[in-house]
Amino acid sequence: MLNFTPTPASIPPSNNVLRQKEITSSPNYHALTPLAFILRAAQIYPDKVAIVHTDVENPVIYTFSVWAQRIQNLAYALIKAGIQPGDRVGVISPNAPLIADAHHGVLAARAVMTPINIRLKPSEVAYIIEHSQCKLLLVDYEYAKLVSDAKVPVIISNDTGRFGDPYEAFLDDGRSFSGEGGWPDLEPEHDENAGAVLCYTSGTTGRPKGVLTTLRGSYLAAIANAYEAQWVHTVCWKIAHIIDISCGRMDRNSSYLWILPMFHAAGWTYPWSSVFAFATQITLRTVNYSQIWNHFLHSGVTHYCAAPTVQIGIVNNPQARKPPQAITTIIAGAAPTAQLIAELEKITINPVHVYGLTETYGPFTRNYPQPSWSSLTMEARARLMARQGNAFATADGARVVYAYPEGVDDGPLIDVPRDGKTVGEIITRGNIVMKEYFRDPEATRKAFAGGSFHSGDLAVMHPDGVIAIMDRSKDIIISGGENASSLAIEQELASHPHVLEVSVVARRHIKWGERPMAFVVLHPQFEPIWKGRFHDFEQNLKNYAKSRLPGFACPEWVEVVPELPKTSTGKILKLELRKLVAKL
Amino acid sequence: MLNFTPTPASIPPSNNVLRQKEITSSPNYHALTPLAFILRAAQIYPDKVAIVHTDVENPVIYTFSVWAQRIQNLAYALIKAGIQPGDRVGVISPNAPLIADAHHGVLAARAVMTPINIRLKPSEVAYIIEHSQCKLLLVDYEYAKLVSDAKVPVIISNDTGRFGDPYEAFLDDGRSFSGEGGWPDLEPEHDENAGAVLCYTSGTTGRPKGVLTTLRGSYLAAIANAYEAQWVHTVCWKIAHIIDISCGRMDRNSSYLWILPMFHAAGWTYPWSSVFAFATQITLRTVNYSQIWNHFLHSGVTHYCAAPTVQIGIVNNPQARKPPQAITTIIAGAAPTAQLIAELEKITINPVHVYGLTETYGPFTRNYPQPSWSSLTMEARARLMARQGNAFATADGARVVYAYPEGVDDGPLIDVPRDGKTVGEIITRGNIVMKEYFRDPEATRKAFAGGSFHSGDLAVMHPDGVIAIMDRSKDIIISGGENASSLAIEQELASHPHVLEVSVVARRHIKWGERPMAFVVLHPQFEPIWKGRFHDFEQNLKNYAKSRLPGFACPEWVEVVPELPKTSTGKILKLELRKLVAKL
Repeated sequence: MLNFTPTPASIPPSNNVLRQKEITSSPNYHALTPLAFILRAAQIYPDKVAIVHTDVENPVIYTFSVWAQRIQNLAYALIKAGIQPGDRVGVISPNAPLIADAHHGVLAARAVMTPINIRLKPSEVAYIIEHSQCKLLLVDYEYAKLVSDAKVPVIISNDTGRFGDPYEAFLDDGRSFSGEGGWPDLEPEHDENAGAVLCYTSGTTGRPKGVLTTLRGSYLAAIANAYEAQWVHTVCWKIAHIIDISCGRMDRNSSYLWILPMFHAAGWTYPWSSVFAFATQITLRTVNYSQIWNHFLHSGVTHYCAAPTVQIGIVNNPQARKPPQAITTIIAGAAPTAQLIAELEKITINPVHVYGLTETYGPFTRNYPQPSWSSLTMEARARLMARQGNAFATADGARVVYAYPEGVDDGPLIDVPRDGKTVGEIITRGNIVMKEYFRDPEATRKAFAGGSFHSGDLAVMHPDGVIAIMDRSKDIIISGGENASSLAIEQELASHPHVLEVSVVARRHIKWGERPMAFVVLHPQFEPIWKGRFHDFEQNLKNYAKSRLPGFACPEWVEVVPELPKTSTGKILKLELRKLVAKL
Repeated sequence: MLNFTPTPASIPPSNNVLRQKEITSSPNYHALTPLAFILRAAQIYPDKVAIVHTDVENPVIYTFSVWAQRIQNLAYALIKAGIQPGDRVGVISPNAPLIADAHHGVLAARAVMTPINIRLKPSEVAYIIEHSQCKLLLVDYEYAKLVSDAKVPVIISNDTGRFGDPYEAFLDDGRSFSGEGGWPDLEPEHDENAGAVLCYTSGTTGRPKGVLTTLRGSYLAAIANAYEAQWVHTVCWKIAHIIDISCGRMDRNSSYLWILPMFHAAGWTYPWSSVFAFATQITLRTVNYSQIWNHFLHSGVTHYCAAPTVQIGIVNNPQARKPPQAITTIIAGAAPTAQLIAELEKITINPVHVYGLTETYGPFTRNYPQPSWSSLTMEARARLMARQGNAFATADGARVVYAYPEGVDDGPLIDVPRDGKTVGEIITRGNIVMKEYFRDPEATRKAFAGGSFHSGDLAVMHPDGVIAIMDRSKDIIISGGENASSLAIEQELASHPHVLEVSVVARRHIKWGERPMAFVVLHPQFEPIWKGRFHDFEQNLKNYAKSRLPGFACPEWVEVVPELPKTSTGKILKLELRKLVAKL
């Protein structure tokens, strides 16, 4: 056990009541809100570890009952600071207790949490603060410089959980201000469609848009994510004889490791899903692969979310091996290559492939493995697993429809045929679609054209009703009149054993209009082989492609690079590659 | 594989679209309804077995895609028959495809399903049909006699799934009537608070009351039940080291065996929970213990619900032994004795103890095992597991409050102290509380007094916030001024190894006012020992009680009986015992 004692203000009273005031008007209705989860967890498993934050100078560990008290203190502190229902509270923090607290405490104050990407420039941060009209900022010490000239109150956390930490003083104030009124004195939000989180999309171009979600949506998405965060081995379904096998579902024995930044699409709702499942959350300030493997091997981690690029870092880390416990990983952010899925499964990290956007609370489709796949080769199966799948648990249907013709931006939506060929746009609707783009009615209208949310992602619908992303429109390469999917090309090139990571973009071509150009990062293990003769490898990869792709889709150019440009959330910045290509 | 082919009308078209019409007005909202589950299941796992009904002369097996088509046909058939949104459709059926279909098909027609207990007398059935104003009845052939003089159309099912069956003809008509418009032509219910199921409580006294539930409530309760239907072994939670172990969660590899009648509180929402989890449902027309064990041992059953009395029959069946797969059983309907829980666990049938009423969609509290219990003896742990626990997943809080004083039937509700002693009434509120008592505003008003639903069950609140039922008020025995809980007495007497089942009621006593009288069924294994000398056993049990209970709670009288009187749903009819005692 670590040498740590929570501040006195973090200790709940003996007569702790974990219930909010009731709406006596409606005995058979209560507003859906993810805030309900922490109250249940603290009531049912008060002494279970909720938050572990140990890879720091000042480690902290909070049980559910202590954490619930801190969340309550935060709510009171915000109210004391003048935060009104609906106000935005900015949060600038890496994965640490501060931002975990905020996901619950800001909601408990009936305010809207506005997480801000820690990797943005001060000017971008200033824009978000100004656009969201944040009334107060909760900021981790390491990022204080980002808000040095903020015009609103800034509460700094030194991430110590100890006396003398301004954030602790803030919570302490909240506790005193509460007059021990506790949860029952915190006015609950009666409108389940009230705002919950305002996330600014880390767009690769233009000004970030503010995605506003609701309490109802967050509640339903969080439950779905807790339920879907489990893999089930494909077993035969002989009538009246089923092989029952264990599955990595999320429950009170689970440990969720925070690799995905919590500020990214509200951590795909896992800050609430983990609590719904009574799971322990382990927070890591930075993505450090040896730390990650330490936790995999010694902390009993059972669940984590990460984009493919991070997953590649994980499977290729020297410490990578079978952990003592099976791990379920939720992959999204980009389509994982069959290669990656296969490599994860080799070390019993079982991938659950989901697809979504900030506008859909993170995941809203999932790839559902079929029993028939068990007879396939790992590669063939992994290819099927790379498809985006079907709308999941609490989502309404997802469709693939024809894009509106040039100049048209509204009207009926027509499904593309289920032929696995016709490319259309993925649209969805229902409870886990954002409320709106904050203070941007025009963008909202466009996004909701025809009564559904337009993802901007291009995909095909397979005959089995499964969605598979082809590309974002700008990623389609028109090569000799043919539409070549850069994603499909990447899938093929990535299957070359010496390729660690690859990205393909269009490059102008006199004869064909466009031709694919591939940027490749070599696998460290094979890098020495090609040292000094990258050109040979490039030829080798081109030949490899010829054997697997139609002519128009074969990369005309291949370039080996030390690394690929990425967004703060690990998405490959094709924009940068295009700029590069434009200069060629 | 069985020799069975579904009727042509049950086969979906090749271009099957499993989506309902959309409400284009709201891209970010869809009405919560459990109907969504069957559409997802048929889309994601079309060929997975949904329904298995084999212990009959004419076995049937339906995959999710075939079943979804039959459900659609039923909806169209009902609409063709003139069923309007909100109309009640009566269902009189044992556990068979007919009533499984109705849970989805009646909702798809936007009608309210009204299941009627098959064990009622024709006069009682007539009352329910009249009170609910059913417009049409779906009736299993075996129970046709119950509605011989019904004034509304009656569709009879011969439970064959084959040509010549009137129910199949009805579905066939529906298919033709649909003009292959499919799901998209079925108008969806846009109001999630619309009625879903109307269940008449099998009250032990007076006229049955009609409990009307909503689509929203059914959706949230069904998801909660799918999520809660799993046990987790208590493991140590050393910080940063968790022993991950398998749990009997409900997923696509699960098989749910229908022992609990589906007509009882809509099968505790499992007709929908199973589909949400993609589980296979096995239907049994009758509770036959050797059939049940056949399925446990040979059909890979992983889940079932049953009241304690039925569970006693299961553990005491000669075939009882460890099944090849672990089984999760949901126990409710009455508090299981520690004895029973221990016996179930011995054969790896892992009990999840829940508590609820028809008015709460079945379960709304659950006993959550604590890690600290692992160090306890099986009996001590089982005693803790017998407590009713905490409000579960999607339920709002459950409380124990002081009953209103005589003559008062409304006003503020005051929690009893958390002392595990003070007896109060269990109340709850929120989304999984019924909409109303149908056509009975007065009863509804009383039940919702003070803004919460009054369960009528008496309980204490333990210091750890766990609810434990003492008794229904009328089951409290006032013995020499002391309140003796007949339930507590039963718990003790049941721990006597020779006792199979026991029920305790108050009997008038000149000196003490009331004294407990115990009716005991001997364990078949020990019955011979006491043959002809029941009086000795009665004395033996009285002495046993003296060593474990306060004097005022010791049974003054014990009587060995061959069996206990029970309701159609397996609840012990204390009323009958009281009548008996009154005559003594």
